[in-house]
Amino acid sequence: MKTFETIEGGVCAAKGFKASGVYCAIKENPTKKNDIAMVVSDVMCNAAGVYTQNKVKGAPVIVTKKNLEKSGGKAKAVIVNSKNANTCNADGEEKANEMCRLTADALGIKPEEVIVASTGVIGQILPIEPIAKAVPELVEKLSYTGNVEAATAIMTTDTVKKEYAVKFTVGGKECHLGGMAKGSGMIHPNMATTLNFITTDCAISPEMLQKALSEIVKITYNCLSVDGDQSTNDTCMLMANGLAENPEITEENADFATFKDALYQVMANLTRMLAKDGEGATKLLTCVCSGSPDLDTAIIVAKSVIRSPLFKCAMFGADANWGRVLCAIGYAEADFDINKVDVDLGSKVGKIAVCRNGAGVEFSEEEAKKILLEDEIDILIDLNSGDVSATAWGCDLTYDYVKINGDYRS
Amino acid sequence: MKTFETIEGGVCAAKGFKASGVYCAIKENPTKKNDIAMVVSDVMCNAAGVYTQNKVKGAPVIVTKKNLEKSGGKAKAVIVNSKNANTCNADGEEKANEMCRLTADALGIKPEEVIVASTGVIGQILPIEPIAKAVPELVEKLSYTGNVEAATAIMTTDTVKKEYAVKFTVGGKECHLGGMAKGSGMIHPNMATTLNFITTDCAISPEMLQKALSEIVKITYNCLSVDGDQSTNDTCMLMANGLAENPEITEENADFATFKDALYQVMANLTRMLAKDGEGATKLLTCVCSGSPDLDTAIIVAKSVIRSPLFKCAMFGADANWGRVLCAIGYAEADFDINKVDVDLGSKVGKIAVCRNGAGVEFSEEEAKKILLEDEIDILIDLNSGDVSATAWGCDLTYDYVKINGDYRS
Repeated sequence: MKTFETIEGGVCAAKGFKASGVYCAIKENPTKKNDIAMVVSDVMCNAAGVYTQNKVKGAPVIVTKKNLEKSGGKAKAVIVNSKNANTCNADGEEKANEMCRLTADALGIKPEEVIVASTGVIGQILPIEPIAKAVPELVEKLSYTGNVEAATAIMTTDTVKKEYAVKFTVGGKECHLGGMAKGSGMIHPNMATTLNFITTDCAISPEMLQKALSEIVKITYNCLSVDGDQSTNDTCMLMANGLAENPEITEENADFATFKDALYQVMANLTRMLAKDGEGATKLLTCVCSGSPDLDTAIIVAKSVIRSPLFKCAMFGADANWGRVLCAIGYAEADFDINKVDVDLGSKVGKIAVCRNGAGVEFSEEEAKKILLEDEIDILIDLNSGDVSATAWGCDLTYDYVKINGDYRS
Repeated sequence: MKTFETIEGGVCAAKGFKASGVYCAIKENPTKKNDIAMVVSDVMCNAAGVYTQNKVKGAPVIVTKKNLEKSGGKAKAVIVNSKNANTCNADGEEKANEMCRLTADALGIKPEEVIVASTGVIGQILPIEPIAKAVPELVEKLSYTGNVEAATAIMTTDTVKKEYAVKFTVGGKECHLGGMAKGSGMIHPNMATTLNFITTDCAISPEMLQKALSEIVKITYNCLSVDGDQSTNDTCMLMANGLAENPEITEENADFATFKDALYQVMANLTRMLAKDGEGATKLLTCVCSGSPDLDTAIIVAKSVIRSPLFKCAMFGADANWGRVLCAIGYAEADFDINKVDVDLGSKVGKIAVCRNGAGVEFSEEEAKKILLEDEIDILIDLNSGDVSATAWGCDLTYDYVKINGDYRS
């Protein structure tokens, strides 16, 4: 897989994408942190989306899907708010449609060319008045360097904004691809919601755009687990406006491979940021499962370890409790020989072997402690049964996770 | 389903079963709590077992399965220790076999007629000397009222011993069925292990015994989740010695139904005790999913809610966060109409509707708080799509869970 130069700009890194973010008091907040954002492309985009698999879907998810069907996979703008998920409300779709209409009117485009998303508490009626007031301001403030204002607006209990972008070359043209994401946590915790907006100026057909997004989501966002709960509003949107003027990617060729590598780099790094900033997290856990006979097995094993509450607690305690890794590998629903499994634990200060051929090996507890006291820990699993690998990202389970999510909603 | 009179006696409630427990210092322990137990039947038993599905299996699990194969499903004794799981050790099977040999020699039976189980820290060599010394003492102390000594010996970080027994009538004869269980938690926390030993004097063929056990495990122990981690040593053994002298149950008739009802009552109550005493738990959560088109759907939905870390935290905080229940129902991998789902929350002080037809309804937060401050909470889900129901048991996710499992092993 190729790696590309990282650049600034987040969701505005690609040519022709403007963004803005303002505070409109969807819920009164003394810090006046931005709570609504807009992203607009100068020209029409092909748009691809991946959405929550939860049967309970936020109204904005339903409306965005309908819009893209109606527009034939074209979109020009995104409107997204935090503080209210607009989910499980009787008037949810009506309100989401209204957000699209307001945005479309202000920009002189069609409502179905607008992507809408919301994140925040569920089951509370979304107030439309502050949004109606904010839209003209958002349009006025649209800027090719508005990415930070937008990335801030979608944050909930995220402690840092999440942006990442790269530049790469397709057909002799310099292309850019970047995005912003929000992670798990809310002011009034309700559900961990992940929203992701990625933009590119690379020219690529709707079919290939969707194909790339679906493939890369599988090995990035879908390999992220903060607590195993799957939100009602999870949304990942990818918009391509073609302004890089490369020959449009319309088939699975070398250009498509390059595009996917760039998309992987952006989405994997956003995933990593989301994991590191998981609710209450003190440590980023990165589990790499290699030596797998196939991709699905590697993903299932890596995710099983990342999701194990017992292992997550052990990492919080910096305890080299390899038995819990092996236990989680053992209950992964996949087919491989447990007696071939090796496990190493590592961080930037070193790496130790803790398990060989499915059984424990002697190691220095002192050395292990030193490694695990770091804030980024690698769990390296080799199934020794093939040559495919996958990565899953997560975080430790801490007192603060319980505190954040055990506190009363209001 | 019939309900029967509960009786004292646990694993000794059935005629002809003796038990004992002693402290043999498998690991030095100042409290000298019993750490090894024996259960012996006066006559040969039919024995059925259900074991962990984890690919990593404790050596005792492997040895017990082999023994029962060799003996044709017959067993006369159980030897079980706490403090060491005898798992992931190179000499694990050798040691487990030695435990069977020691027991068999002392009782004058065959090694393959012995069921062996261990629970405790994994990856540490099991010392056989204390066990060799303990076996004669265990045999000497065997008693028809030794159930409490045995139930205490299998406890790890369990805060209370778990026993339950009933009496019922088959073919005009009074039968007894009782058992003991240990739950999730260890002195040096490593994996949550569940061990269960159930005895009965009811005469029942090996095939019907296994059939009853497999069916009832599915709707009791397999519907228990403390943290979603599945141990390497989970074992549930059921022994029937026939001393009640009823006509042997050999087919699916009314007697078999009665036997299963009795087994359900014992196992469901042990499951409930295990959930309530889950690591760090302050609340027992009982989720009943009714109105399901089939049993699997009901089980999957109930377990999905019980397992949700976000919901478990909300219960710790006594927060009527029905959105999290609906979210967990929504990502359950089953087929039903989310828009028909009703949810009530209840406890002994009352019950409130929080969701109707998949959407929130107004409720008194004050009333909700009062209900949720109780230590036994019911989550009542009606899918309104059929007439099958299932129950899952769990507990809240608390600071103490993180503390117990984040602490260093030694």
